[in-house]
Amino acid sequence: MVYILGGFQTDFARNWTKEGKHISAMIREAVDGCLAATGVAPQQIDVGHVGNFAAELYAMQGHLGAFLVDVDPAFSGLPTGRHEAACASGSIALLAASAEIEAGRYDCALVVGVEQMKTVSPAIGGDYLGTAAWYELEAKGVEFPFPKLFGKLGDEYDRRYGLKDEHLAHIAAVNYGNAKRNPRAQTRTWYMSEAHACETSKYNSVIGGRIKISDCSQVTDGAVAVILASEKFAHSYAKQRGTKVEELAKIEGWGHRTAPLRFDDKVAESANDPYVLPHTRRAILDAFKRAGIADCWALSGIETHDCFTTSEYMAIDHFGLTAPGQSWRAIEEKVIDFDGKLPINPSGGLIGAGHPVGATGVRQLLDASLQVTGRAGNYQVPDARRFATLNIGGSGTTSCVFIVGR
Amino acid sequence: MVYILGGFQTDFARNWTKEGKHISAMIREAVDGCLAATGVAPQQIDVGHVGNFAAELYAMQGHLGAFLVDVDPAFSGLPTGRHEAACASGSIALLAASAEIEAGRYDCALVVGVEQMKTVSPAIGGDYLGTAAWYELEAKGVEFPFPKLFGKLGDEYDRRYGLKDEHLAHIAAVNYGNAKRNPRAQTRTWYMSEAHACETSKYNSVIGGRIKISDCSQVTDGAVAVILASEKFAHSYAKQRGTKVEELAKIEGWGHRTAPLRFDDKVAESANDPYVLPHTRRAILDAFKRAGIADCWALSGIETHDCFTTSEYMAIDHFGLTAPGQSWRAIEEKVIDFDGKLPINPSGGLIGAGHPVGATGVRQLLDASLQVTGRAGNYQVPDARRFATLNIGGSGTTSCVFIVGR
Repeated sequence: MVYILGGFQTDFARNWTKEGKHISAMIREAVDGCLAATGVAPQQIDVGHVGNFAAELYAMQGHLGAFLVDVDPAFSGLPTGRHEAACASGSIALLAASAEIEAGRYDCALVVGVEQMKTVSPAIGGDYLGTAAWYELEAKGVEFPFPKLFGKLGDEYDRRYGLKDEHLAHIAAVNYGNAKRNPRAQTRTWYMSEAHACETSKYNSVIGGRIKISDCSQVTDGAVAVILASEKFAHSYAKQRGTKVEELAKIEGWGHRTAPLRFDDKVAESANDPYVLPHTRRAILDAFKRAGIADCWALSGIETHDCFTTSEYMAIDHFGLTAPGQSWRAIEEKVIDFDGKLPINPSGGLIGAGHPVGATGVRQLLDASLQVTGRAGNYQVPDARRFATLNIGGSGTTSCVFIVGR
Repeated sequence: MVYILGGFQTDFARNWTKEGKHISAMIREAVDGCLAATGVAPQQIDVGHVGNFAAELYAMQGHLGAFLVDVDPAFSGLPTGRHEAACASGSIALLAASAEIEAGRYDCALVVGVEQMKTVSPAIGGDYLGTAAWYELEAKGVEFPFPKLFGKLGDEYDRRYGLKDEHLAHIAAVNYGNAKRNPRAQTRTWYMSEAHACETSKYNSVIGGRIKISDCSQVTDGAVAVILASEKFAHSYAKQRGTKVEELAKIEGWGHRTAPLRFDDKVAESANDPYVLPHTRRAILDAFKRAGIADCWALSGIETHDCFTTSEYMAIDHFGLTAPGQSWRAIEEKVIDFDGKLPINPSGGLIGAGHPVGATGVRQLLDASLQVTGRAGNYQVPDARRFATLNIGGSGTTSCVFIVGR
């Protein structure tokens, strides 16, 4: 069993380029904050992992794992690496770190997710994001390719089952509303009502296909660090802090699957499947099985990948809140609302809290661990005991799921 | 114990851009070749890992793990990820894959290292490679930063212990000579004698500092795939092929350490250490300890990271062939020659065989596994039973070592 001792998230509203700061400063602040929050000494860290999508493009810098060494003199010699699967990069780093702990290689792992995106204009950033898809075939020369790809996800739902824009608008409104309770959410001071999300106007214009501004996650700078620990380390950590290991969050299960890269290939493959993204469904079921839970109703909440409202719409039926294609029922019945039966994204998710691409999977795991240990502050789901995360890379290509409980 | 079932290397002399081929074609050829070479069916692969440095820059493409799914219909749903630590990216992918096997997550892992570098001019490529160092502080605006950084490694040896260019020239000549036996080596038809490597002329001009053309590894396109397997899988694989599991190559030990990113910080930190790169020395000793061997003389050969002749010069004393600073003794005594007491880079290494950055660590492991199973053809070291690899990212920043035996 792998434990989550805690972590730290930078304020996702910040613009580090405007502050004149390098991506290494983001890593440093997340790590320093994480060590302070957990009370773990740098000398206790055995290994470091970084999740990052495309610092080569956004920040002209590779080899990000090595930047961990720069944070503290005690880290000199620390084994490090960087892991990537587009917007699921943070989860790939978490999978690598937790596998090493399970293998007995290390007892205490520092995992940092980081992305600095505001170094370039939205148009150039949109082009960079195209490298998460098959760039030459799906993104080259296309303005903002990803809203268009996730618009096609909505179109496919519409074709198979029908899809109303008002349901997507409710998803946007819930995420923006939840973000107001989260002191590190990018949009916590922004305005977005359900009525505003419903309308198409010069204040909520179409980005591509059926995707309007209100359907989109943000361009975000952010870094998040967590500490994962072996059972042995967690026991000694709990003892030192006068608590019980049962009070710590732990990873109860995980799922990891990859669908064909091109969106059209995904849809063609799933034509006869009740699920539009069957590999995402399998990743969720794999995680449920490993965690020993029967279905989503064993969860207190979900932190899912709402890069666009359509991806959360997909997550609702793929997690099993409704039958396939009926996500609208859970929306109409307000199951996913903050005080609903199974709240989704109490943090505000990617739309509300922000989406620093390589950091998102780590942010989701941190929020899940805060929720199940009663430390989520104003966005705490009452009596939360078990949370799921779903982190997606590309147009539904890489799906990573964690079940976090205590 | 993690077994190496075999693998496949593309011809490193090829220029895939001139062939009009995308990086996905390189991945496909390596995987198809690996499945054919090992006789493993695509349905038997549980997970895929890709090591790659900077396809975002060289090929405007991220999310490379997902390209594995495109190779074979049976791979749909395969868990995948990409791993990076500059020129040690291939080894980071191998560490992640082997940790998952040791953790019992999967039984059979496909690991691909790949880099397509000939998409751009040498000057632009040199700038991209600068992102393996601290780009803004060590590479920005510098023409060919890496030869200069590894020139400084030679300068530091010179300052501490003395260093003669003729010894570096012998390293170059051995690697070029060895490459002539390797049918997949980039320079197998090139001309380079020790006398030529010694001279500075318009045919062997200075690139930066003490580094001449003959001291440099090549700009290379290449992909390498290997299959790693659990003990359980290896037993059943051996049985099916009518052989014994003892005849298969396995990973006996590994080491992984990260030094401070900036070269000047490394040298300042090691000022009072007998080793110029003490973290590289520690990675080697960690691997020896895990493999249960006392020193380098338990090895039949070494595949090391000779991105420049100075890095191989460093490897010689860091592996313990000589006392610190006396690598020249092993060179003069021809210990490292193909028919020497402890041959280094029978493949031709990075200087002779080529250095497709993200593929190099996987190529080294494949060559080590071919050597210890007597399948290295014309570059077979007689009676080889145990090989070490050393794969380095940045200016001696990330060091990864594997001990491969049977």
